Amino acid sequence: MQLVSMDITSEYLIAPGVADPRLTRAVTGTDQNGEAAEIAVVEERPLTIFLNSQEIVTAMTIGDYPEYLALGFLRNQRMLRDGDEVTRVDYDEDLETVVVRTAVETSHEEKLKKKTRTSGCAVGTVFGDMMEGLEDVRLPEAKVRTSWLYTLAHKINRTPSLYLEAGAIHGTVLCRQDRPLVYMEDVGRHNAVDKIAGWMLSEQAEAADKILYTTGRLTSEMVIKTAMMGIPVLASRSGFTAWGVEIAREVGLTLIGRMRGQRFICLSGEERLVRDMDPKDAPVEEKKHRRKGADG
Amino acid sequence: MQLVSMDITSEYLIAPGVADPRLTRAVTGTDQNGEAAEIAVVEERPLTIFLNSQEIVTAMTIGDYPEYLALGFLRNQRMLRDGDEVTRVDYDEDLETVVVRTAVETSHEEKLKKKTRTSGCAVGTVFGDMMEGLEDVRLPEAKVRTSWLYTLAHKINRTPSLYLEAGAIHGTVLCRQDRPLVYMEDVGRHNAVDKIAGWMLSEQAEAADKILYTTGRLTSEMVIKTAMMGIPVLASRSGFTAWGVEIAREVGLTLIGRMRGQRFICLSGEERLVRDMDPKDAPVEEKKHRRKGADG
Repeated sequence: MQLVSMDITSEYLIAPGVADPRLTRAVTGTDQNGEAAEIAVVEERPLTIFLNSQEIVTAMTIGDYPEYLALGFLRNQRMLRDGDEVTRVDYDEDLETVVVRTAVETSHEEKLKKKTRTSGCAVGTVFGDMMEGLEDVRLPEAKVRTSWLYTLAHKINRTPSLYLEAGAIHGTVLCRQDRPLVYMEDVGRHNAVDKIAGWMLSEQAEAADKILYTTGRLTSEMVIKTAMMGIPVLASRSGFTAWGVEIAREVGLTLIGRMRGQRFICLSGEERLVRDMDPKDAPVEEKKHRRKGADG
Repeated sequence: MQLVSMDITSEYLIAPGVADPRLTRAVTGTDQNGEAAEIAVVEERPLTIFLNSQEIVTAMTIGDYPEYLALGFLRNQRMLRDGDEVTRVDYDEDLETVVVRTAVETSHEEKLKKKTRTSGCAVGTVFGDMMEGLEDVRLPEAKVRTSWLYTLAHKINRTPSLYLEAGAIHGTVLCRQDRPLVYMEDVGRHNAVDKIAGWMLSEQAEAADKILYTTGRLTSEMVIKTAMMGIPVLASRSGFTAWGVEIAREVGLTLIGRMRGQRFICLSGEERLVRDMDPKDAPVEEKKHRRKGADG
């Protein structure tokens, strides 16, 4: 069994930092019987993100990838655009700040006037910009095999994670076909996605051949981010919102939710699904590996 | 069984709007076998909140209590303070805006310069203000009986809700002893809490004798909001973050998490717990009523 775990973890470019002592803390309390109980809980710390000299936001994060979080946040907020050349990203651990510098200063003051906090976390996309950014998005036609989805869910559920260790955390995994690549976790589900976006930007990674798998709900914000990252497939254990479904259909995103065990519902992109595995042959979801749902 | 449900719902001042057709929509997709599947999904719509003439934020919400959401959001952001007299709250359904007006204009421009998005949703509390607001908070000493907690969890789990109907939504319930009073749901967990804060402000409801029960995770933001609302007890099915626990201990908030069936963990306020019910006597959690965890 350990060999299987090592196989799973070795597939990842970035796997959850379960061995990183900075990310969790042991706390002691009492249980229902009044007996001492020691549990692991995730850390949360503020990180202030600057774009050049402009302070943008303070996000609460577990603190494992501040540079990726900053890059991805700014990118997904459309404060960093395709034409903006990032020259440096400086993280100061003592000041709990990260500064993203560009060759030429970006025009984002206008954005700061209109603030949208959406149902997501740590993210106030400028509402107008967000909808505007979507107008031109048409995702590439990408076939997705159901065998990939089942295999990914199985692998991801068996991957040691902070969630399994300490709960109260969301995970999002960038995948390619049946291989999970980058598994980011954070207290806020949008931080996890932003960290992936930051990694992709950093690595100049292609988006068209990727699948995004998340434990979080498929809200409009989640769908929009995925589409703006250029990823054509989004899957989750959790449920949908009406607007998330509408947007997915408009931009051509394949949207699969309520993925648990054999079951799933596809609410966008059915025509792009290749059903190459009988659901009955889907790997069995062992109870102990089962994530506790994640309608959050 | 129907009589039991009616008894449960009749205890509430505000119960989930399961009969409200504006809050969910039926959508059709396909399931794992390629068969047509129709499911209910929650609606999400933007709501722009104004404080006097100042546009503050656009929040994504299911749209059931826009006035309470606006009031509670502004209050929890500390843009509305105890001395600020609210004269009117005007919701415009067509424009999807709500304007909260005060007798005298509030000084909040300074807040708008510092924006904190935390791990929560739809909320960018000004980080400095948030921590400052906490400094003076010492919650009243409030005993809490474990029988109340078990009874509340049992009643809340059995209450018809949008969550049980359509998933992908968070619920927070304001309670007094073993009686649930105001059950708010929303796509974003912080919206649910803000709506309760708005109701409390509207009704001039006392906070010291209340319990806040949530499906969401007990993050620092959740703990801070609860404390700033003056509520001395916070309970959840979900888990904790380290900072949430720290803050709870500092302000004297009784914090109970991972409440499922008989079990729970108390990480703050153990001395205020009155264990008046043997955990074995806790009402059994029927599987079908069990919320799917909610580490979101």
